[in-house]
Amino acid sequence: MTYSLALKLCRIDVKYLICFLIFCIPPAFSDTLITTKQRFTMENYETHYGEIIPNVEIGWESYGTLNVKKDNVILITHFFSGTSHAAGKYSEDDKASGYWDSIIGPGKSIDTNKYYVISSDTLINANVKSPNVYTTGPSSIDPKTNKPYGLTFPIVTIRDFVNVQHALLASLSIKKLHAVVGASMGSFQALEWASAYPEMVPRAIAVVTAGEADSYLIAEVEKWANYIKADPLWNNGDYYGKEEPLDGLTNAIFSINLIGVSGLILDRQHKKRMTDEMSPRKSIRSNFSIYEKMEVKARAKARRLDANSVLYLVRANQLYRLGHARTVEEGIRPIKAKILLLPSKYDVLIPEYTTQSLYTKLLMQNKSVIYDEIRGPWGHVDAILAIGTKKNAIRDFLDDK
Amino acid sequence: MTYSLALKLCRIDVKYLICFLIFCIPPAFSDTLITTKQRFTMENYETHYGEIIPNVEIGWESYGTLNVKKDNVILITHFFSGTSHAAGKYSEDDKASGYWDSIIGPGKSIDTNKYYVISSDTLINANVKSPNVYTTGPSSIDPKTNKPYGLTFPIVTIRDFVNVQHALLASLSIKKLHAVVGASMGSFQALEWASAYPEMVPRAIAVVTAGEADSYLIAEVEKWANYIKADPLWNNGDYYGKEEPLDGLTNAIFSINLIGVSGLILDRQHKKRMTDEMSPRKSIRSNFSIYEKMEVKARAKARRLDANSVLYLVRANQLYRLGHARTVEEGIRPIKAKILLLPSKYDVLIPEYTTQSLYTKLLMQNKSVIYDEIRGPWGHVDAILAIGTKKNAIRDFLDDK
Repeated sequence: MTYSLALKLCRIDVKYLICFLIFCIPPAFSDTLITTKQRFTMENYETHYGEIIPNVEIGWESYGTLNVKKDNVILITHFFSGTSHAAGKYSEDDKASGYWDSIIGPGKSIDTNKYYVISSDTLINANVKSPNVYTTGPSSIDPKTNKPYGLTFPIVTIRDFVNVQHALLASLSIKKLHAVVGASMGSFQALEWASAYPEMVPRAIAVVTAGEADSYLIAEVEKWANYIKADPLWNNGDYYGKEEPLDGLTNAIFSINLIGVSGLILDRQHKKRMTDEMSPRKSIRSNFSIYEKMEVKARAKARRLDANSVLYLVRANQLYRLGHARTVEEGIRPIKAKILLLPSKYDVLIPEYTTQSLYTKLLMQNKSVIYDEIRGPWGHVDAILAIGTKKNAIRDFLDDK
Repeated sequence: MTYSLALKLCRIDVKYLICFLIFCIPPAFSDTLITTKQRFTMENYETHYGEIIPNVEIGWESYGTLNVKKDNVILITHFFSGTSHAAGKYSEDDKASGYWDSIIGPGKSIDTNKYYVISSDTLINANVKSPNVYTTGPSSIDPKTNKPYGLTFPIVTIRDFVNVQHALLASLSIKKLHAVVGASMGSFQALEWASAYPEMVPRAIAVVTAGEADSYLIAEVEKWANYIKADPLWNNGDYYGKEEPLDGLTNAIFSINLIGVSGLILDRQHKKRMTDEMSPRKSIRSNFSIYEKMEVKARAKARRLDANSVLYLVRANQLYRLGHARTVEEGIRPIKAKILLLPSKYDVLIPEYTTQSLYTKLLMQNKSVIYDEIRGPWGHVDAILAIGTKKNAIRDFLDDK
């Protein structure tokens, strides 16, 4: 073990030495992709349902360089509890990289040597307490009252996320994308882009996706909302400046985290259990360590999120149907993009049969579509954790003319 | 339609006419299996963890006739929210029959012309308000205080359910079973029987089953408990004689009902949705009809159940490991029964890979085991709703010498 480590360190040194000797330049001690959060603002935004939201802002970041023709842009759209931090780090000291760092970067599948990658926060992003997220939602200040909107914030949809991103691109004079790529709620945005702005979207990659929120998804995500609404501190959405509904939000995040991973992987992670745990045998108030560990993690995350924003995100997902048309088929009709569908085998939140149903509907209308199953052990979060298994498929799809 | 109905009625009439003409007996106008709830009591029961519960009682019912040798007994063990009402009706007027009426009865897979079928309530059954359920649990009166136990009731396990059933059989002088058959939590009892009393169990049928509660199941069922504990009316289990935690229990049952069915079937049942539903677009407080329908159903059921009993059932399931041994392998060792495993393809509560894992472990110890997948569209509740697709497999397995 120690020997192998020494050998490893040696190899690194040798690499830098060779680099220095051959090119006579100081070796790059890091190839970390560094990014900066930027802010896009709009004076007034009219929602899909016809409400006006003043002073809309969202955050975004980018990786790579915009070419002169401005035709090398790939847009990344994020998942439910995610942010626009898809790749790289904000500084060398950051512990973690963006969620899709395994596929976005120089020489990677979404190659920042070729493409200018833009990743955008959504409206109603729940991570309102993060210094690196700009968003507009129920915790924003309503200029009419100078107080947070709470439940007076209008209901927004996946289409609204897309429309605000469209305005962001317009502000950068980007008229056409090379592709749009997203996972889960991000995949809904990717497909919505292809339907809403077909001339702008020649390629879309939708990871763990569906053509619409079906009855199951609508009911499942309402379960998350139930936890929040059941917390007396939620107070009908009026908790800003008071104690926040942390218990309800923790339970909601616990539920989100649990449905995100398959039992296969959970059991591998938490092997020690009943044998050594005596307290759950003694009292209903005691819990198993698996639960306690997950609860601690959920509570830590809950401190960073806004409960009302989670409720608004739940609703946006419930209202999702491709193109926000009367039927999925109607939403598919305008699409001109080639589509890559990447479902995950053990996903229980968006089970593979829902992606299959979308695939069939796309084929029926002669759309160009590839269906390629991720066979990771993680379930829904394979969209992040096992995305590397599809790196060649993604590269080939993006590079195809 | 009307013609076909007329023809149907005609056929029934003809059947009765032939019956009357040939046998010269008045035709049976009904072949309804009628059953009566019976009560078994024990003065003192010592739990698997060594606590004494005085005055234990459970309900049971039977179908068919016990033979002289008392060797034609099949025991049915029930699922989480179920009762011992597995087949037949209590009276001709009953709207519904027992949950497995499709496979239990004269000439059916579990043939009451051959077998004496006993179905038993468990300890801590949650249906305490049903006139047809006898059980002992947290809502029972503690003779020491003359008040309901609440959370002072000892934690009991699947092994305790089995041990009390064992005492019930002993009281009937039944020394050996022909088989034990159960679904979900009932299947845990069936397998536990085979491990705990191997000489008594030559056959066990386990529908939607696992060798242990894995980390996922432990965490998933704790989500149900979370809803109850989050309700201020739960009051740390002390709510008897006061207003009960109906909202929390409703949310828990909603969650149980939702994970019981696959999205496939839910979407088929609730087709009308976004198109006509305007209110969810307007307020976070409004809900989709799919949710509202399921909520009404869950609330109606919640009125019949006891919240603390649900918490105790959650814990009994979390503590389940075959034989309550240190490992599943150790629990398997004593088993002498032939075993029929019937997993369900779309089950997300006990996914098929968990049954496969048990199957492999049984094979590794040279146990006689058949694995046969139910391919219904319902998921977990295929154990009830699609059990008919396995009626021949069940019959053959039971009739095999």
